[in-house]
Amino acid sequence: MAKEKKSKNKETLKNPKGTRDWFGDDVVLLKAIRRQIETVFEKYRAQELDTPVFELQEVLKGKYGEDSKLIYDLQDQGGELLSLRYDMTVPFARWLAMNPDIETSKRYAIGKVYRRDQPAISKGRMREFWQCDIDFAGETAPMFNDSEIISCVVKIFEALEWTGYTIKLNDRRILDGLFEVSGVPEDKLRTISSAVDKLDKMPWEEVKKEMVEQKGLDESVADKIQTYVTRKGGKELLAELQKDEALMNNPKAKKGVEEMELLMRYLQRWKALDKISFDLSLARGLDYYTGVIYEVVTEGSAGVKAPAPATVEDSAPPMPPVASTESASTDAPVTSNGSANGVPRRAKEKKKVSEDEDRSDDPTVGVGSVAAGGRYDNLVERFRPGANMPCVGVSFGIDRIIALTKARIAKGERFSYIKPNRTDAYIMAFGGSGFSGMFEERIDVLAALREAGLRAETFSKQKAKLQKQFQLADRAAAPVAVILGEDEQARGEVKVKQMGLPDGHPEKDGVLVKTEELVAKVQAVLARLDQ
Amino acid sequence: MAKEKKSKNKETLKNPKGTRDWFGDDVVLLKAIRRQIETVFEKYRAQELDTPVFELQEVLKGKYGEDSKLIYDLQDQGGELLSLRYDMTVPFARWLAMNPDIETSKRYAIGKVYRRDQPAISKGRMREFWQCDIDFAGETAPMFNDSEIISCVVKIFEALEWTGYTIKLNDRRILDGLFEVSGVPEDKLRTISSAVDKLDKMPWEEVKKEMVEQKGLDESVADKIQTYVTRKGGKELLAELQKDEALMNNPKAKKGVEEMELLMRYLQRWKALDKISFDLSLARGLDYYTGVIYEVVTEGSAGVKAPAPATVEDSAPPMPPVASTESASTDAPVTSNGSANGVPRRAKEKKKVSEDEDRSDDPTVGVGSVAAGGRYDNLVERFRPGANMPCVGVSFGIDRIIALTKARIAKGERFSYIKPNRTDAYIMAFGGSGFSGMFEERIDVLAALREAGLRAETFSKQKAKLQKQFQLADRAAAPVAVILGEDEQARGEVKVKQMGLPDGHPEKDGVLVKTEELVAKVQAVLARLDQ
Repeated sequence: MAKEKKSKNKETLKNPKGTRDWFGDDVVLLKAIRRQIETVFEKYRAQELDTPVFELQEVLKGKYGEDSKLIYDLQDQGGELLSLRYDMTVPFARWLAMNPDIETSKRYAIGKVYRRDQPAISKGRMREFWQCDIDFAGETAPMFNDSEIISCVVKIFEALEWTGYTIKLNDRRILDGLFEVSGVPEDKLRTISSAVDKLDKMPWEEVKKEMVEQKGLDESVADKIQTYVTRKGGKELLAELQKDEALMNNPKAKKGVEEMELLMRYLQRWKALDKISFDLSLARGLDYYTGVIYEVVTEGSAGVKAPAPATVEDSAPPMPPVASTESASTDAPVTSNGSANGVPRRAKEKKKVSEDEDRSDDPTVGVGSVAAGGRYDNLVERFRPGANMPCVGVSFGIDRIIALTKARIAKGERFSYIKPNRTDAYIMAFGGSGFSGMFEERIDVLAALREAGLRAETFSKQKAKLQKQFQLADRAAAPVAVILGEDEQARGEVKVKQMGLPDGHPEKDGVLVKTEELVAKVQAVLARLDQ
Repeated sequence: MAKEKKSKNKETLKNPKGTRDWFGDDVVLLKAIRRQIETVFEKYRAQELDTPVFELQEVLKGKYGEDSKLIYDLQDQGGELLSLRYDMTVPFARWLAMNPDIETSKRYAIGKVYRRDQPAISKGRMREFWQCDIDFAGETAPMFNDSEIISCVVKIFEALEWTGYTIKLNDRRILDGLFEVSGVPEDKLRTISSAVDKLDKMPWEEVKKEMVEQKGLDESVADKIQTYVTRKGGKELLAELQKDEALMNNPKAKKGVEEMELLMRYLQRWKALDKISFDLSLARGLDYYTGVIYEVVTEGSAGVKAPAPATVEDSAPPMPPVASTESASTDAPVTSNGSANGVPRRAKEKKKVSEDEDRSDDPTVGVGSVAAGGRYDNLVERFRPGANMPCVGVSFGIDRIIALTKARIAKGERFSYIKPNRTDAYIMAFGGSGFSGMFEERIDVLAALREAGLRAETFSKQKAKLQKQFQLADRAAAPVAVILGEDEQARGEVKVKQMGLPDGHPEKDGVLVKTEELVAKVQAVLARLDQ
C-alpha cells in the first residue's frame, strides 16, 4: 500500500493552511495535559461551557479592534451571517448576557479558536489552535476572584509539573495612573501603553525612541515614564509606590495600588505570591481589560528552551515546530500564537498596514507567554446594556504548553501524569504447515481480556510469521504477549510471556497456564510491572 | 443583576440557528458518555485523530452526493477555499491518503460536525452536533475488522448500560444481488434501494406503490423484491438464502452471503450475535458503502421512549428537545440528526427540490438510529489513486444518545457511570456584629482542601447571612460544610458538619475538630458517604 507512486492528486491533498492533524504521541500529550488542567478546574468548582464553533457576526463585531480582520467569516449561504470564534471570552460574555438569571458563574472551556493570521512555523502561529480558559463572573469582595484565578494558574502549572515560570502582574489602573502622572496626554495613553508592553524584548532606549520619534511624546515625559516602568518586584515595589505622593494623588493609580495590596495579601494566603512578579511594564493589548492583568512567561533560568534555533525567551522565532510523528502534514506550523484569553496582540491603534502584516515586533508573540488574562468588567454589558457582570479570567495556550513539554521531554525530563498509550497484551498464534491462524480462538482471548478491562490487541490477518507478530507486539508497546498454539489449545493451555525479560530468566520463554487462568495471569504480570 | 429590564439588544443576542450551548447537567452527561465510549475505544486499541474543523473545499467535494448543499462554506477572504467538516469519515480518508506509510489504522474521533440543514426541534436536527467515530483501515482477513467494529458497538452500549437496542445488519452486495435477481434494471438499483430503506416506517404496500408508480418498476419485479426484503432474522435467514439457487447464482449476492456467514461466526465469538438482526430491508443512503452495513435502533420493547409527544420509534417527530437547564437558548433544538458516519440520509438520486427541503419521509431520520456505519473500501483511493485502503467504521450520534439517556433518567433509570458534579466541601463563616467574614481564613481552608485533592468552594462575598450560606452550600450539592467562627478560630478549632443528617443524630450540628485535623475529618466524612 505504501508503495504506489504519488499521483498528481497528491499535490492538492493537504490540511488547510495553518492547521494540523493531532495524532499519536501529540494526542497522548494533549489529553494528559487537558486532564491535568480539567482536574484543577474542577477542584476550583468551575463548570464546563461548550459553545458553538461559530457565532453570529454581530456578536464578534467590535470586540477585537483591528484584529477583527483576522476573523474567519462563513459564506453568506442565505440566513444568518456567521463567523468562527476568535476566542472563548466573547462567547462566554454572550452566554452570560443571554442568561440574566445567572448572578455568579465559574466556567471553564476547552476548545479550538480561529484566527486568519499569517501562519508562521518560526513564530508558532497557527490559524486553528487549542485554548483552555477559566473565567469567574459576578460581583464579589474586591480581588477575591482575581486572587483565586491567579492561584488556579499556580495550581495548573503545579499539576503540569512545571517549574521556572513567572506570573507577570500589573493593573491597568496603575498603568494609566502612572502615564497620567508622567504627563502622557489622554489621546496617547493606549499607544504609549503599547510601546511600554515591548519592554520585555527591547531595551528602554529603543522603546523611548519609539515614544518620542514615532509617537511624538515629549522626551521629559518619556524619562518620567522610565522611572516607573523599568521597575518590577513584589511587595517592596508596592511599598515604594505607596510612598510616591504624586502617584497616590492620582485616583486611578491609588485605587489600583490599594487593590494590588489586597491581591498580594490574598495571594500570600493562596501560597501563590512567590510566583508573582509585579511588573509595571506589563500592559497587554486588549482594550477591554479594566483592572488586574497578568501573563505567564517561562524563564530561561529554568533551562526550559525550545529546540533549536530559538529559545523561548528569544524575541523571534519564539516557538519550535512540533511535527506529528505520524502525520505527513508537516508543512503547517503547530503551535498557538499564545495570544491568550481572546486578547489581540496589539492595542487598537493606527498602524501602517505593512506593520500589521508583519508582526515581528509584536511583544506577546515574542515573550513566549503560555497563559494570560485579566479583569474585564464591562464586556457583558456590551451585550446586555445595564448588566452588571464583572469578570476575570485566564486563558492557557495549550499548543504552546504542549510544545514546551515536548521540548522538556526531549531533554530527558519526565512528567508523572504522561503515561504511554500502552497496549496491555498482544495476542499471537503460531503453528506449523496447514496452521489455521486460530482466528476464532484469538477473538475469544481478546474478548476475555477486554472484558476484564484490559487493552488487548491481535493482528488482523489470518496468519503471520513469528517474527512479524513479535514486531507488531513491539510496535504496540505491549509488555505481555499471549501466545496460542494448536497443541497447547488441545491441552486447554495458553502461553503468557512477559516481554523483554533478560536471557536466563526462568520465565523468559513464557509460562503455560490453563485457559481459564489466562486473564488472572496477564493481570498478575501487569500488576508486577506497574509496581 | 438579574433584575434589569431587557433591552432591545437582547433580541439579537442568540446562538446561531441550529446550535446550542452545552452547560450544566448536559455537560455532565456529555462527559460521562464520552468517557465511557473512549474507554471502550482504547480497549480496542484505537487511537484518537483530531482533524481541523474545516477542510479544503475540494476535499469534501463530490463525497456527499446531493447533501453537498448542506456543507457550510467559509467566505473567500483570500487564500484557500474552505468548508466546515460534514462528518469525520472524509477527514479520516484524507488523512490516510496523506500518510501513505500507514498500512493499517485503528482511529477514533470525537468532535462536532456541521450540516446546514433546516433545523427542527421535532426532528432532532441540529446544524452543529457531536459525533463519535471509530474506523479501522487496511487489509485484513475477511470480516475480521467488520466483526470487531460491531463487537465494539455492543461493548459501547454495554458500557452505556443500555439494553433494548438492535443492530440491523445487511450487506450491499446481497442487496444489489437480490435486486438484480428480482429483475431491477441496473439504472434503477439505487433508487429502488432507497425505497426499500423506508420499510422501517412504511408498510410494504406504500413502498411498492412508490416503486411502481413513482419509479416505474414492473409490478412483478416489486413482488419478487417483496419476497426478500420483508425478511429479517439471524442464522436461519442466512441458511434460507444459501438454499436460494437463483440468488446464489448471482456472484455479488453469493460473495455477500458467504462473508455474512463468516461475520456471524465471528460475531458469535465476540458474543455479539444476539444483538444482531440480519435485515434485508436495510439499505442506508450513502453511495460509498461497498459491503456490510449496519444501523443501531432502539426498541420499543425496552420501554425506551422519548418524552412526549414522540416515541423513538415514531416516524416523526423522532427526538425530544433537551433544554439545557441553565441556558436560555432553548429555542434551538439540541439533538443530532442521527445521520451517522457521514452518511447522507438519502441515496444520490433525482428528487424534486420541494422533497429535498422537507425530509419528512427521510427514513433514517425517522427510525431513531443512534449509531450507523459500514464498509467503504474505495474512499481513500479517491484521494490517492492507486491506494488500496479498505475501511470499515461506525459513527455514534452523541446528541441523540444523550437525549435518550436523559429520557431514561427522567423515567427513574440510573446509570452507574453518571456521577453528579459534586462539590465535596463548602466553606462557611459565621460571626456577630463587626464580623470580618474571615476571608483569609477561608482561603486557607480552601487551599488546604484542594491541595488534598478535594473539590472545595466558598462564597466570594466578604460576608453572608447564615441562611444564604446554607442555600449556596445546598446549591453546590456539597455533602460537607466546614464552618469557621472567630471563637473557634481562636481555639484553633473548626466545625465540620455533614449535611442532611436527621434530627437527633449526634453529629447533626457538626463536630469541632482541631484545624490541623480538618482535612482528614472531611475526607473521613466523604469516605463514609461514598461507601
